[in-house]
Amino acid sequence: MISKKMRPLVENNSAIRVMFEEGKRLAGLYGAENVFDFSLGNPNVPAPAAVNRAIADVLREEDSVAVHGYMSNAGFSDTRTAVADSLNRRFGTNLKEGNIVMISGAAGGLNAVLKAILDPGDEVVTFAPYFLEYRNYVANYEARLLEVPPDTETFQPDADALGTMITGKTRAVLINNPNNPTGVIYPEEAIIRIAEVLREKEQAYGHAIYLISDEPYRELAYEGAQVPFVTRYYADAIVVYSFSKSLSLPGERIGYVAVPDEAEDAESLTQAIVIANRVLGHVNAPSLMQRMLVRCIDEETDLEAYDQNRKLLYESLTEYGFQCIRPEGAFYLFVKSPEADEHQFCQAAKRHRILFVPGSSFSCPGFVRIAYCVSYDTIRNSLPAFKELAEEYRLKM
Amino acid sequence: MISKKMRPLVENNSAIRVMFEEGKRLAGLYGAENVFDFSLGNPNVPAPAAVNRAIADVLREEDSVAVHGYMSNAGFSDTRTAVADSLNRRFGTNLKEGNIVMISGAAGGLNAVLKAILDPGDEVVTFAPYFLEYRNYVANYEARLLEVPPDTETFQPDADALGTMITGKTRAVLINNPNNPTGVIYPEEAIIRIAEVLREKEQAYGHAIYLISDEPYRELAYEGAQVPFVTRYYADAIVVYSFSKSLSLPGERIGYVAVPDEAEDAESLTQAIVIANRVLGHVNAPSLMQRMLVRCIDEETDLEAYDQNRKLLYESLTEYGFQCIRPEGAFYLFVKSPEADEHQFCQAAKRHRILFVPGSSFSCPGFVRIAYCVSYDTIRNSLPAFKELAEEYRLKM
Repeated sequence: MISKKMRPLVENNSAIRVMFEEGKRLAGLYGAENVFDFSLGNPNVPAPAAVNRAIADVLREEDSVAVHGYMSNAGFSDTRTAVADSLNRRFGTNLKEGNIVMISGAAGGLNAVLKAILDPGDEVVTFAPYFLEYRNYVANYEARLLEVPPDTETFQPDADALGTMITGKTRAVLINNPNNPTGVIYPEEAIIRIAEVLREKEQAYGHAIYLISDEPYRELAYEGAQVPFVTRYYADAIVVYSFSKSLSLPGERIGYVAVPDEAEDAESLTQAIVIANRVLGHVNAPSLMQRMLVRCIDEETDLEAYDQNRKLLYESLTEYGFQCIRPEGAFYLFVKSPEADEHQFCQAAKRHRILFVPGSSFSCPGFVRIAYCVSYDTIRNSLPAFKELAEEYRLKM
Repeated sequence: MISKKMRPLVENNSAIRVMFEEGKRLAGLYGAENVFDFSLGNPNVPAPAAVNRAIADVLREEDSVAVHGYMSNAGFSDTRTAVADSLNRRFGTNLKEGNIVMISGAAGGLNAVLKAILDPGDEVVTFAPYFLEYRNYVANYEARLLEVPPDTETFQPDADALGTMITGKTRAVLINNPNNPTGVIYPEEAIIRIAEVLREKEQAYGHAIYLISDEPYRELAYEGAQVPFVTRYYADAIVVYSFSKSLSLPGERIGYVAVPDEAEDAESLTQAIVIANRVLGHVNAPSLMQRMLVRCIDEETDLEAYDQNRKLLYESLTEYGFQCIRPEGAFYLFVKSPEADEHQFCQAAKRHRILFVPGSSFSCPGFVRIAYCVSYDTIRNSLPAFKELAEEYRLKM
């Protein structure tokens, strides 16, 4: 009696989530310390101490009714202002409270944005590999997700290929920067090139094509790498942000959507996002977390911890003979499977109690995603198992 | 460039939310103490002290990574168990962890449930008056909401009329008990009668018809009134609950869905609800609030405060000549408009700086909803204005 639409989703449940549940099962069997679970983007770095302190302070200092109560669906005024001010300071933008909608994590924000702009039959284009939930999010609104095939050498977006895929039905292009699952950052020149293509297509088709940038990993950029802020390069840009990774709060569901004044119909678009968010049952972003953000907007995660993980895992795996693009951001390695069917490779790894996710789950078969947002010890302890796995595949022979 | 589907929603934004924003505007002009805003179901009674204490304790005592991290999409195991155990103690049910899905408020839960069961063209039946967002929630899944016309004397559900409206396309019947906007409680005999009709129709059509009971006001029942727990009367029942009112946490977005084992396809239905919740971008109910619930599941709000408001407002308004059904639950009075078009009545009240919501927003024109979840002082201070309003309509003459 579940809906026809939901049946395939129930039958082919998210491979990431299945692996996460499998990890919990194995941890129960062998002890958590003997299972190397790299399946889920669940930060092991704790939230900055200031976050928990701020929550306690809010509860002590602010009016409890207001702290836990309804506010305007778009969020508390001071929270939205704090977000806008922080972005202006960092990216030279000119955002105000009215350009910011507080949302329950990037997944919630993407749904609200897509519902606001999509009608049945519309199209959204993205670049493979990509977070496979995008497909479900777009399908929620009876629209189609088209994907530009991956460049498996650089994993950079191919703007020319994008151009050939845009039609009169294209309402949006969706990018994820830094990228899950590859860890690649799309640099300024890539964004400039995408913007050029989109402006040309906007003129050709006579309507806005929104560039939606999904940026939960923005703050995770290593060795000073810059993540371009898309509204500076393209008017019809929408930024969807989550504090899940930057403040290690994935379970709390807190983020924002930024719509600059320059976007077509910016005001009614923002209003539509607020209403879509309400109608989808999100109503508003969790209020206590919004109160916390007023005090913690510029807090930073322990980037050094992720960077140590990144270096140790990347250097060890390449030393063992695995092939992998060097990640500049996020907390993922996207490793080439030593056999054609990466599902087999995942099975082989599981026999060594290593869990990661097949690239097919990101529309990029032949690769696997390894989430290194685990403890340094987990990585160090997993290395002998990775080495055995490499030897099993005779990678160095 | 917003979607065609969203345009009417943006143009006819929720009357409740418009009134809420109007209230804030008037409060800015005249001072909050001179505006009597009865528009929104935003509890003025603070969360029990134990709730804020538990949040602080969780932050101090539990592992921060786990507190703010991802868990299984259905929720933390101990939170789900705490919910099931509490329901079992109170209602003699036999629920287990697997029957409970933690969700981000009743609005999120209803969306997840409806997405799990509805295909385009399906039908859901509800009883007028009802929370008008139901219409949007059902439309999200391309299904139709049909309404049984209101009995404006008793505001009780007419099960016989329900029977005539069920077709082969009916997938669910949606009730709200205690009721928003009337404050009426559907008693055991009403639920028994609805269950009889539904069982008969299930047999006739050969498929499950779910009875979805939306219960954010369950704990707000006065003078010992009982709110029947629907799974005890009907197998294919789904309870959607929110802690918004019972713990005064509407901004935090925390609740649960309960699916009993007796429901058809209970296991895959539960799984579909979890996945629908994920795909709609809710992902999981906010984690810190889930941790708090393990410690506070049986905490109670200050029912006495609401009851004092109820008595003062009900007795005063009826004394002034307004007509209104005596509410047994929730925190609303549903008052008959002294003129045919209740929008005019709302405008007249606004001139006295009293804000409430037209009954048309609940598919019941000719009435207005007054939310008395405000401070006792607000009610006391509003009485002269209500009296003047009554005199303006010559109610006692």
